[in-house]
Amino acid sequence: MALPVETFFLHPDAQGTLQQQIQQMIAQGILSGRFQQGEKLPSTRKLATHLGVSRITVTIAYTELLANDYLVSKGRSGYFVSENAPSPPSFTATPESQDAVDWTRAIGQKFSGGAGLAKPQDWAKFRFPFIYGQADQTLFDHANWRLCALQALGQKDFTALTTDYYDQDDPQLIEFIARHTLPRRGITARPEQILITLGAQNALWLTTQVLLTQRRSAVLEDPCYPALRDILSQSRCNVTPVRVDQDGLPPDAIPPETHVVFTTPSHQCPTNATMPMERRRALLDRAREMEALIVEDDYEFEMSFLKSPSPALKSLDTDGRVIYVGSFSKSLFPGLRLGYLVGSEPFIREARALRASVLRHAPGHIQRTAAYFLSLGHYDALIRRTGTALHERRRIMEEALAAHDLRISGRGYFGGSSFWMRAPDHVNTVELARRLHAKGVLIEPGHAFFAGTHQPSNYYRLAYSSIPTARIREGVDLIAREIEEMR
Amino acid sequence: MALPVETFFLHPDAQGTLQQQIQQMIAQGILSGRFQQGEKLPSTRKLATHLGVSRITVTIAYTELLANDYLVSKGRSGYFVSENAPSPPSFTATPESQDAVDWTRAIGQKFSGGAGLAKPQDWAKFRFPFIYGQADQTLFDHANWRLCALQALGQKDFTALTTDYYDQDDPQLIEFIARHTLPRRGITARPEQILITLGAQNALWLTTQVLLTQRRSAVLEDPCYPALRDILSQSRCNVTPVRVDQDGLPPDAIPPETHVVFTTPSHQCPTNATMPMERRRALLDRAREMEALIVEDDYEFEMSFLKSPSPALKSLDTDGRVIYVGSFSKSLFPGLRLGYLVGSEPFIREARALRASVLRHAPGHIQRTAAYFLSLGHYDALIRRTGTALHERRRIMEEALAAHDLRISGRGYFGGSSFWMRAPDHVNTVELARRLHAKGVLIEPGHAFFAGTHQPSNYYRLAYSSIPTARIREGVDLIAREIEEMR
Repeated sequence: MALPVETFFLHPDAQGTLQQQIQQMIAQGILSGRFQQGEKLPSTRKLATHLGVSRITVTIAYTELLANDYLVSKGRSGYFVSENAPSPPSFTATPESQDAVDWTRAIGQKFSGGAGLAKPQDWAKFRFPFIYGQADQTLFDHANWRLCALQALGQKDFTALTTDYYDQDDPQLIEFIARHTLPRRGITARPEQILITLGAQNALWLTTQVLLTQRRSAVLEDPCYPALRDILSQSRCNVTPVRVDQDGLPPDAIPPETHVVFTTPSHQCPTNATMPMERRRALLDRAREMEALIVEDDYEFEMSFLKSPSPALKSLDTDGRVIYVGSFSKSLFPGLRLGYLVGSEPFIREARALRASVLRHAPGHIQRTAAYFLSLGHYDALIRRTGTALHERRRIMEEALAAHDLRISGRGYFGGSSFWMRAPDHVNTVELARRLHAKGVLIEPGHAFFAGTHQPSNYYRLAYSSIPTARIREGVDLIAREIEEMR
Repeated sequence: MALPVETFFLHPDAQGTLQQQIQQMIAQGILSGRFQQGEKLPSTRKLATHLGVSRITVTIAYTELLANDYLVSKGRSGYFVSENAPSPPSFTATPESQDAVDWTRAIGQKFSGGAGLAKPQDWAKFRFPFIYGQADQTLFDHANWRLCALQALGQKDFTALTTDYYDQDDPQLIEFIARHTLPRRGITARPEQILITLGAQNALWLTTQVLLTQRRSAVLEDPCYPALRDILSQSRCNVTPVRVDQDGLPPDAIPPETHVVFTTPSHQCPTNATMPMERRRALLDRAREMEALIVEDDYEFEMSFLKSPSPALKSLDTDGRVIYVGSFSKSLFPGLRLGYLVGSEPFIREARALRASVLRHAPGHIQRTAAYFLSLGHYDALIRRTGTALHERRRIMEEALAAHDLRISGRGYFGGSSFWMRAPDHVNTVELARRLHAKGVLIEPGHAFFAGTHQPSNYYRLAYSSIPTARIREGVDLIAREIEEMR
């Protein structure tokens, strides 16, 4: 029986080339049982006319389906659904039914309800996205990333793509980090002291599980990265927030009996403060005195375009006391999900065993692509270009903020990609963000960065990593006007 | 100053094309400070002669480095290290020092020392790899995977590649799983009931964290997947192993007061038993009676080449009592690290929040590539081709095993990719594996699959998913001979 051409439709929202859409439509028709084994397909000419595409497009789609044995060609008689084509399931799906499980009882531990990470997924559609930590399509070196990915997809790298590394990582990526990336932060590490993680988030999570229990105490900077507070609260350890000043975390304020100190010395998150060398030494001394460990989140050191970055805190550590967290999410893109941990071997061994149990390892293809991108020098070139662009955006932003007398609470003297802003006391920045959202302006309210229940409500973060340079002035104008109206 | 051509060497172990090796050598020379700003490079002709490569290769490498601003070209004077090239770090790395931390005390929770997942990373170098769950280069559709990856790297998919999904997943992959994959297992699910995980390992781990605590009880099949036992022992819940029979897990043997039952009804791991429909219904009844939940690991249903697969246990579940774990590791490749969880919304909500905290989400590029590979029909075509090849290998394997009177303890009547073998009682299969390893034969000793301390030591697993068809007979001969010698 011939399938009537009228039953063939391209879905208006379909993705991919026309050829792929046709291929997909037919494969899915067969998989769902709508087109059955032995049935005849419309001729390429007929289908092409019906769909309004060129005949060669249909011919290529049919040829692909022949290769995959969805179709067979019987000379002049045309194309048929192959006898070897996959058959649809012989049973029908159970209709959805009412849950009989009491989930309140069944769930042993609740994880939802944290400060959350929610930012608009559709930020790129906004005219004025002063949004933090997302990839800017105009700055990212997409062409070379593609080439590196393509190389990592080659026959030679088949093992790197497909292999089960169990608790191990791509040796090429580890070697590059050990030999090239870490020395630039003043850090020496052997491969056994490095673990690849699913982004910095995963590195911080693994570290927390290995080092902290209900009976141990951690110090967090206040304000700090909200997701870190969620991780620690899930671990149920005792958490003390310590208010940062213009130089970051003050070592004297760390209470005795602290086991682990989490800090962001290069760029304090979110205030952008850089910890001076003297304080770094004092922090290490204080930790030694208390026999505490320090977790250094070095999430944005590459964005030091105003002055060269200071060496990492880890590079001053002669005790093995500092655990270093690196990330490619800010410098490449967050969807990559690649970061790394550097620490003493006994620590890395436990973090490695835990990671193996939780997820085994980061996908091999992603690791190998990053290894190529780094080793061919594209990474450093990208950082440099990004720094130049951010430098310019920052200059324009500072001018615009000054023109409106908007108060910068933390600017970061080494660079970075955001300003930590303070609105007048009466301005609730959640409300400010809501109003600006309606006008196409995205800002990040600051309350979630603070610990406790009496969080200041008048801070906000303004990032310049994703906003087009030409729109900065107009965007800042809108923010200033909205604050004015909230008097 | 001109850099002497003699200082340029290609590393004998270097990877990639010659052009990339040259590019890499120069970029790394600059990044490490060996080549300094303003220094003159050898002419393309001179470097080409010195390295023994064609001049055009050197010219292309130089051109790439110009584009990245590592080099500048000054007309006829030649190429120089650019003034804008990245500068090396201005501080030297701290030499490695003695650890002053007492790690035994500092580590709050130990994760190492589990049954582990260790298999030889270099299995592909063995002549007779009867190894389980690795990608066979001769069967995998590498060409179409590459094409799908390439499409997912295009401009149109820039967002899918780079975006921070926070706690969300690629909507295209979720939609395909909901509309096409799950219906083939008889399962209906809405997108909110599906969560993408880093492989089945990650799905089982997340499920355990959400459902089990120190005060709750789980049932595990005995024997079972050893990494699952590690996950449960880390969660410190109460675990009861229940011995499986030729039909899988016997529902009557499940003790009352069980909160969660872990089972592999399609292909019991490692015995390959398929649970009959009647027992599936009895298992659901038993769970309902006890108000217990069931976690169904459906890790290998695609490999049903002897009979069509039975519908998943989840498809019989009208209570929302079954949590379904799916995986692409066996059907595509383990290095992909993609799996998924299907369950009631309140459960998925908690698993989603936990996943966000632990790692956010699987890399976007991997998700989108899989979505294309699935939706273009390549996945089903691959499964079909693989099934045909495994069917043939299995036939030869059964003949060879029968010829030597080697005892199959579990063969799997639907297909699968391995036999569960039983050696004579006096044969310790760890020792057997060690002896065979020296002869190029890889087998998997069975003891780690069993619970408790008195594990039977004479079982082993023989997989045929990665061994070339032509080597099966010789490999089985070697196994039989070795067992004979161990009398």
